[in-house]
Amino acid sequence: MMYSDIPAAQTLVLYFKSKGVKNIVIAPGSRNAPLTISFTKNSFFNCYSVVDERCAAFFAMGMAQQLQEPVAVICSSGSAMLNFYPAVAEAFYSDIPLIVVSADRPSYGIDIGDGQTIRQENVLEKHIGYSANLKQDVSHASYKVAKFGKVLLKESQEDIQSYNEKELAKALSVAFNEKSPVHINIPFEEPLYGRVEEPTVTIQDEAILDVEPTAIEDLDGLKEIWQNTTKKMVLVGVNQPNDIEQSILKALAEDDSVLLFTETTSNLHHPEFFESIDSIIAPIEKSEDKYKLFKDLQPELLVTFGGLIVSKKIKAFLREYQPKNHWHIGTKKAYDTFFCLNRHIEQDPNTFLKTIVSDNKVSSRYKSRWKKVKAKYEQKRDEYVKQIPFSDFKAFEQILKTIPKGAQVHLANSSTVRYAQLFPMNASLKVFCNRGTSGIDGSTSTAVGASIHSSDPTLLITGDLSFFYDSNGLWNRYVQPDFRIILINNEGGGIFRILPGKEDTKEFETFFETHHHFTAEHLANMYGFEHQQVNNENDLAESLQNFYKASDKPKILEIATPRTLNNKILLGYFDFIS
Amino acid sequence: MMYSDIPAAQTLVLYFKSKGVKNIVIAPGSRNAPLTISFTKNSFFNCYSVVDERCAAFFAMGMAQQLQEPVAVICSSGSAMLNFYPAVAEAFYSDIPLIVVSADRPSYGIDIGDGQTIRQENVLEKHIGYSANLKQDVSHASYKVAKFGKVLLKESQEDIQSYNEKELAKALSVAFNEKSPVHINIPFEEPLYGRVEEPTVTIQDEAILDVEPTAIEDLDGLKEIWQNTTKKMVLVGVNQPNDIEQSILKALAEDDSVLLFTETTSNLHHPEFFESIDSIIAPIEKSEDKYKLFKDLQPELLVTFGGLIVSKKIKAFLREYQPKNHWHIGTKKAYDTFFCLNRHIEQDPNTFLKTIVSDNKVSSRYKSRWKKVKAKYEQKRDEYVKQIPFSDFKAFEQILKTIPKGAQVHLANSSTVRYAQLFPMNASLKVFCNRGTSGIDGSTSTAVGASIHSSDPTLLITGDLSFFYDSNGLWNRYVQPDFRIILINNEGGGIFRILPGKEDTKEFETFFETHHHFTAEHLANMYGFEHQQVNNENDLAESLQNFYKASDKPKILEIATPRTLNNKILLGYFDFIS
Repeated sequence: MMYSDIPAAQTLVLYFKSKGVKNIVIAPGSRNAPLTISFTKNSFFNCYSVVDERCAAFFAMGMAQQLQEPVAVICSSGSAMLNFYPAVAEAFYSDIPLIVVSADRPSYGIDIGDGQTIRQENVLEKHIGYSANLKQDVSHASYKVAKFGKVLLKESQEDIQSYNEKELAKALSVAFNEKSPVHINIPFEEPLYGRVEEPTVTIQDEAILDVEPTAIEDLDGLKEIWQNTTKKMVLVGVNQPNDIEQSILKALAEDDSVLLFTETTSNLHHPEFFESIDSIIAPIEKSEDKYKLFKDLQPELLVTFGGLIVSKKIKAFLREYQPKNHWHIGTKKAYDTFFCLNRHIEQDPNTFLKTIVSDNKVSSRYKSRWKKVKAKYEQKRDEYVKQIPFSDFKAFEQILKTIPKGAQVHLANSSTVRYAQLFPMNASLKVFCNRGTSGIDGSTSTAVGASIHSSDPTLLITGDLSFFYDSNGLWNRYVQPDFRIILINNEGGGIFRILPGKEDTKEFETFFETHHHFTAEHLANMYGFEHQQVNNENDLAESLQNFYKASDKPKILEIATPRTLNNKILLGYFDFIS
Repeated sequence: MMYSDIPAAQTLVLYFKSKGVKNIVIAPGSRNAPLTISFTKNSFFNCYSVVDERCAAFFAMGMAQQLQEPVAVICSSGSAMLNFYPAVAEAFYSDIPLIVVSADRPSYGIDIGDGQTIRQENVLEKHIGYSANLKQDVSHASYKVAKFGKVLLKESQEDIQSYNEKELAKALSVAFNEKSPVHINIPFEEPLYGRVEEPTVTIQDEAILDVEPTAIEDLDGLKEIWQNTTKKMVLVGVNQPNDIEQSILKALAEDDSVLLFTETTSNLHHPEFFESIDSIIAPIEKSEDKYKLFKDLQPELLVTFGGLIVSKKIKAFLREYQPKNHWHIGTKKAYDTFFCLNRHIEQDPNTFLKTIVSDNKVSSRYKSRWKKVKAKYEQKRDEYVKQIPFSDFKAFEQILKTIPKGAQVHLANSSTVRYAQLFPMNASLKVFCNRGTSGIDGSTSTAVGASIHSSDPTLLITGDLSFFYDSNGLWNRYVQPDFRIILINNEGGGIFRILPGKEDTKEFETFFETHHHFTAEHLANMYGFEHQQVNNENDLAESLQNFYKASDKPKILEIATPRTLNNKILLGYFDFIS
């Protein structure tokens, strides 16, 4: 065991240990040496080294997403921490407890022309649960104070220690209780490499306050509304696997007045649920009876839980055909996604749903009416897949039905997750996607981080832009042999061909689609992946037979699809089922 | 010619055109489509497509660094713009006019659970010259306003137009006059792809105000101090090539009371100048006569200009042995780097130096005393190089003396620029390095962006961590055949072996040095570079003979140096010259 000799570094490490923050991702640097020394020489912690800070933060976030507990990512001073920001914003909107720790220069050393020095305090404040700006220890400050007379010491070391502990406890409270990312900035004076065998500080071990569960006012009133409403829509966004109790799901599934819309990222499954929202809504949009059909679909009560919703079509529909009541269930926050939220139920969805769902069900034809539509598009989808040429659409259908049971599946943004929404997913799969900001900037790093503590194999399905964007996500020593990447390479941002702005011009190809000819072959060689490339249905089917088998190396299966055909086939699907 | 039909987009584009912002780097996206359409369909602008926003921003910054004029980088909404932040911070501290334009959702669409949506307004505020938050046009806002009744329109379109124009003029004023990065956030409502042949708005074309030159108070007093001081040190940080007039350099060079310290990034050359600061100071640090020698070196007056200083040794020295007076010359800002700044002369260095330097020179032995030291280390350095084995040190000596005249040279952080400081540079070379934040995050992208408008060939010298960190810097279509990269690959962060914390443990190799076995071969193949690898003096010498010759493809010359030997040889150099 070894600690830095700097009290603030010891204090931080002792707090992390005391509160059970075990996983520490470290981006190399010198200013953070006091932390690196203390964490890596202490067997309580699992430490991971990731050089590119953008990747390091997504890697840590992926780990926190899986463990459902805070994971720390640590960097040196300067622009390093700004590279954390994309992952911090994703964690902020996805409620993932990422603890960002930035080593800093002493305050007298900011904006005096020293290298690797920026204004770090509160720099993430727009997307952070809490910013703890620790103070520098007197013992270390005094060296420069005496020398330059620049630092006015108003506080004793005891006051500083007490302040730092309170700030640490506060930051950790927010991370643990609110599942928010938090930022801890910690200034260190040189020398940075001093070490001691035992800590010289004793921490007070400030408590992390538990959150009182919120009591719900007017619960009887809500129950009454629920039980008397014949058209209830339950819409579930991003949700951890196995988060909702089976008995609740069963009760909701057996209620004829409940239309339960899931997304791939909901991780909720039941034959009675509706899992391809767009396949319901797109045909209505195209129908001459649009108004009548949407009126039929319009719920009186909308109940939502989970994180962000992928489907743009359901948002457009519900914004136009608003329910009388929209309740969002969740302990933390409620977004007014459809501009008609009138109740935020600050409870865990299990607690609330258990209260509200009863055997006393209202009679309704709401669900049965839409089950017919579902049966139709399911049949039509099967027909359609049989008749189309090889394409993104066809490839997704093949991929999704052959993923081994129990796998952890990461979907990159943005085409990937949207295609996945169109097909059924095996209920045993655990599906994740960075839908907080829906960026393409860290999907690979997130998946690698998420795979670390998983006993099941991890599969990342990604498009080419996401994959090349985050290629540094493969630059670490923690990619396990059972890690799999399926890369759908349509030579650019295929999604832009689906958006309304598409045109066949050089400008479109360069500035929207960003057409390219790269394959993953070189990166696979560089990072020690097996790599295989296919461009048709038969080869893909054959490759998939062996792809998931145990291997010494992780694997990339690259699927080339026809760039200018994919959009026509996708849009054709919605025509076909209409 | 074609414009978006959205007035705010037209207004921005017309302002850029009117003020001469010609170069536009575009990261692909949909929310920024109104800008992409307007810029790319307008022959006034040079548009560049770069997918990875971190690279796009450094690429634009490199271009602005060379052109010495504002260059814009544009992105879609969401986390995209957070990836700009490392380059923004670099531009902020390096006084480079990078114009960041982020397309945004309408304000009613923030924090309601929509994808690719974050809190973009003012998000860069800690490191930005100005944040202009444009307002959404009424014509476009009205669609949603009517629909959801969420937006309270208090302003007319005329007021919004006038506000947006004033904000644009203000942002462009700061970019042009203060050479600061600025941020323009511009919300767009769907539909995003409408276009018109001619703009529908007429801009007022608000003037960019010129800055009045600052008159200097007490100029005679300063002149008198200058002329009567026998120990004057002039220390020059980052400085554009050919920025200081030759007559001034000559006058300073001929003044025996002036010790002019340059750095590689100063781009100032004269045989009388001292260009390897550390080779002067390191031997003193080791000397038994340290106090006396530092007292000899200590200036009475320190005059600085240019940007940040690389040498840590000169900072440590001047902080300990402070001059009586420290004047910093520069129109924008003055850092109190040595804790003794007592005068910020807000003028262009040429203007002020021309006034102060006169033929009436004070008699002094200051320079002649240190010229002897310089002659000694120069001779010893030559001896040392002859006797050491192949290493970073030897490779740098070979590289720097063979760069073709007139080349633009980009040095990556951090070992590269530090090694380069130890050797003379040909006066015709134009040297650049991201010393604002001294990050390793964008050196390659910066160099590629900087090469675009250069008629001279561009050479990037980089270490392996910087190179792999910013490998996406090669992912664009603008790398020219005369672009050259010399990659010194010592299999990790060699600089950590020089820092005091070095130890031969697994933890050190993993978490500080981040030891790896990558070469650039795969990336070279991927991005269409010729690639050659050498690991000894003779092969390097031979490779360098052909390396700069014209070729169809850009080239990477990778130099493998002995990982665990480099630090000993570098430290040995300072011993040898002592």
